[in-house]
Amino acid sequence: MPETRALATYIVEASPECIPSDVGHEARRAILNYVGCALGGSREPAVEVAIRALGPFFGEPRARVLGRSERMDPLHAALMNGISSHVHDYDDTLPKNYIHPSSPLASALFAFASANRVTGADFVHAFILGFEAESRVGNAIFPAHYDAGWHITGTAGVFGAAAGVGRLLGLDVRQMTWALGLAATQAAGLREMFGSMGKAFHPGRAAQSGYLAAVLARAGFSAGEAGIEGARGFAAVQASSYDLSEITRNLGVDFDLRVNTYKPFPCGIVNHPAIDGAIQLHDEHGLAADAIRQVRLRVAPLVRDLCNKQVITKGLEGKFSVYHGAVVGLLRGRAGMAEYTDDAVNDPAIRRLREGATAEADPKITEDQAWIEVELTDGRVLAKFVEQSLGNLSRPMNDPQLEAKFRDQGVLALAADRVEDAIRLCWRIDELADVDAVIESVAPQ
Amino acid sequence: MPETRALATYIVEASPECIPSDVGHEARRAILNYVGCALGGSREPAVEVAIRALGPFFGEPRARVLGRSERMDPLHAALMNGISSHVHDYDDTLPKNYIHPSSPLASALFAFASANRVTGADFVHAFILGFEAESRVGNAIFPAHYDAGWHITGTAGVFGAAAGVGRLLGLDVRQMTWALGLAATQAAGLREMFGSMGKAFHPGRAAQSGYLAAVLARAGFSAGEAGIEGARGFAAVQASSYDLSEITRNLGVDFDLRVNTYKPFPCGIVNHPAIDGAIQLHDEHGLAADAIRQVRLRVAPLVRDLCNKQVITKGLEGKFSVYHGAVVGLLRGRAGMAEYTDDAVNDPAIRRLREGATAEADPKITEDQAWIEVELTDGRVLAKFVEQSLGNLSRPMNDPQLEAKFRDQGVLALAADRVEDAIRLCWRIDELADVDAVIESVAPQ
Repeated sequence: MPETRALATYIVEASPECIPSDVGHEARRAILNYVGCALGGSREPAVEVAIRALGPFFGEPRARVLGRSERMDPLHAALMNGISSHVHDYDDTLPKNYIHPSSPLASALFAFASANRVTGADFVHAFILGFEAESRVGNAIFPAHYDAGWHITGTAGVFGAAAGVGRLLGLDVRQMTWALGLAATQAAGLREMFGSMGKAFHPGRAAQSGYLAAVLARAGFSAGEAGIEGARGFAAVQASSYDLSEITRNLGVDFDLRVNTYKPFPCGIVNHPAIDGAIQLHDEHGLAADAIRQVRLRVAPLVRDLCNKQVITKGLEGKFSVYHGAVVGLLRGRAGMAEYTDDAVNDPAIRRLREGATAEADPKITEDQAWIEVELTDGRVLAKFVEQSLGNLSRPMNDPQLEAKFRDQGVLALAADRVEDAIRLCWRIDELADVDAVIESVAPQ
Repeated sequence: MPETRALATYIVEASPECIPSDVGHEARRAILNYVGCALGGSREPAVEVAIRALGPFFGEPRARVLGRSERMDPLHAALMNGISSHVHDYDDTLPKNYIHPSSPLASALFAFASANRVTGADFVHAFILGFEAESRVGNAIFPAHYDAGWHITGTAGVFGAAAGVGRLLGLDVRQMTWALGLAATQAAGLREMFGSMGKAFHPGRAAQSGYLAAVLARAGFSAGEAGIEGARGFAAVQASSYDLSEITRNLGVDFDLRVNTYKPFPCGIVNHPAIDGAIQLHDEHGLAADAIRQVRLRVAPLVRDLCNKQVITKGLEGKFSVYHGAVVGLLRGRAGMAEYTDDAVNDPAIRRLREGATAEADPKITEDQAWIEVELTDGRVLAKFVEQSLGNLSRPMNDPQLEAKFRDQGVLALAADRVEDAIRLCWRIDELADVDAVIESVAPQ
């Protein structure tokens, strides 16, 4: 069977009973992490600007953006959810294909569920199937597609949104084939946009375009039926080399949710091992700033290429400073949203240690590793080698760590007690009679 | 200056006084042809399905779709205009880059002008600038981009819509640079969709996405500023070879509107020379069906590859029959919308001659040429060689022919006297105080 049709058939026919329970748990972890990221980004300028600009075009106010009070039509809500959940680059990542999978997918699903009654069981099932659809399409074209300059979160994400919303809409196989075709023909997003609001626009537009694809297909708007594998289809046009067997191999048996990862710190991932080691030293020794003379790092060469800033005044710049990450980890035992504000960056003690720190590029150190050495004023030297960074596949964030990450972002939008309620609801989302309970739990009051 | 910024600067700063008058006239020809095509497609299933499917998402009803009574938000109106104006594949074409230029561009501009007061002079100027933007971006990446499988009408068209709407919105250079970047990062459309409603979706979505890009940019939604020329920008990612100098060379001096073409017949362009010759024989000899024994053609080999159908029962199939085109040309002296209905295809006299006709593939005959020979029942043989097909750059359709084409499509949506009013308004669109007069002139009463 051709790949587009095979994938469509699976999405339409897959039964919730055939989803292994560990995959279901991983879906809830991804959804929890996603909702936290959407809250964390919900007040960012990219979201504010997009809502202000597009407000005059909003349809009937049937859907909420996560963590905000405005209501709008669900297609626009999908766009806004996508922008907010990716704007900090803090959402989940598939190391095997670089897709940020939950943002384009869950942004569409939550927008749909805000405007339509959807049970938690259906929602989680659609999430799992959409996740698999986008990740498998991504696997087929990775790495050539990404290397060429495509932002794969946009280009593959649109398939996830179309598949997930299509499943909730109850498409038949032909309609789902069309929905995947209409997704394929909207697959867009250039890495040239990195560093601008355009980057977060990609999962937003993918969510909206995938949702649109499913709605059109359901009404009978036809598309080419070989959208993925055709001679002029997505794979051939958007990748110089590809392997279509990735789409169907062990479909329904292997699930890429099992190889999803979560970022523990809201900054460039190459900084994570150094931060991780610094937090371990903090937890083991409880160091005060004035007890520390100097922080010295040995890191993978790429870290110095990307994150070598020391003299900085803006929170955003802190994300590109491995020194800042290490120092806040040492002094505060954490590197959350509050450590990447202008205030944190300009804190005198942090600044003194950051500006006096050193980082040596060492080609023997991998990007998952870091060596951190702290010279104390009493002459002692403390050291820590991180062999596998927290958050990677060998050392995944555990459930309490994901909750802490949620809290850290949730308090930017909600009172602390409501954050706890939202966490509890996310963990049992599959049991809810109406997913709108989650959406309302994170809405401003 | 980098190409994106150079193009943005030109679009923002170009003065109407610097547009040569022949270019202004060609713009009015393109707009007249566009409005006719939008009327001709306005009742097609692709449009009906899209309006039905997306109606629940429409915003405030500030804009009309050309030739229809519904009102909706202008972003959706742009989408619908794009679908209707391209659905018959009867809209204009740039032979140098295969773009159907007016559909993505004018669909956005008319949607904008339906919701906002726009003078005819501003409208035509925005059209000319948007046309140049999309065609020059297309020139830079053609032919590699098209050959790879991209539907260039969608991928380049989005730049035209962003530029045109951006001009009407009064963007500054930085905002226009962002708008072009947000256009670049939405550039999509696969040739795999040809033969489905997905094809007409491309200029529609390009119109809508370009409009969206301009609206976001104006509000301060930032994008990468090298959307076209950057290392991960549109040209590098979406074409294996390209020439960026095409974007800026003689900008403001050469205008691609001068090399735009209009299809005289609503069918595959490779059939046009045979139809053209048949109409000439009809006009010279006034033949009745029962005076004709057989029709014999000599055509370029591609014609037989693409349009060799003889035994057909549907109007749509007639578009892929060079025999049908030649026979209706001979018998009716025209090949308009009425010649591609189920009725016309099943007309007994047409059917007899179509099924008895022959077509010989002759590699010496170019795709602009055809040889047609008609054997009469009295033994005489009439013949005609068409050296340059009507509608190509050497033999452009003249203004009365464009009017006749407009009428042929206009009567599908409007009473005949209103069609004449609309034609008159299109010719003097540049003088109108409010372009809405054109839109209202083609609205159902």
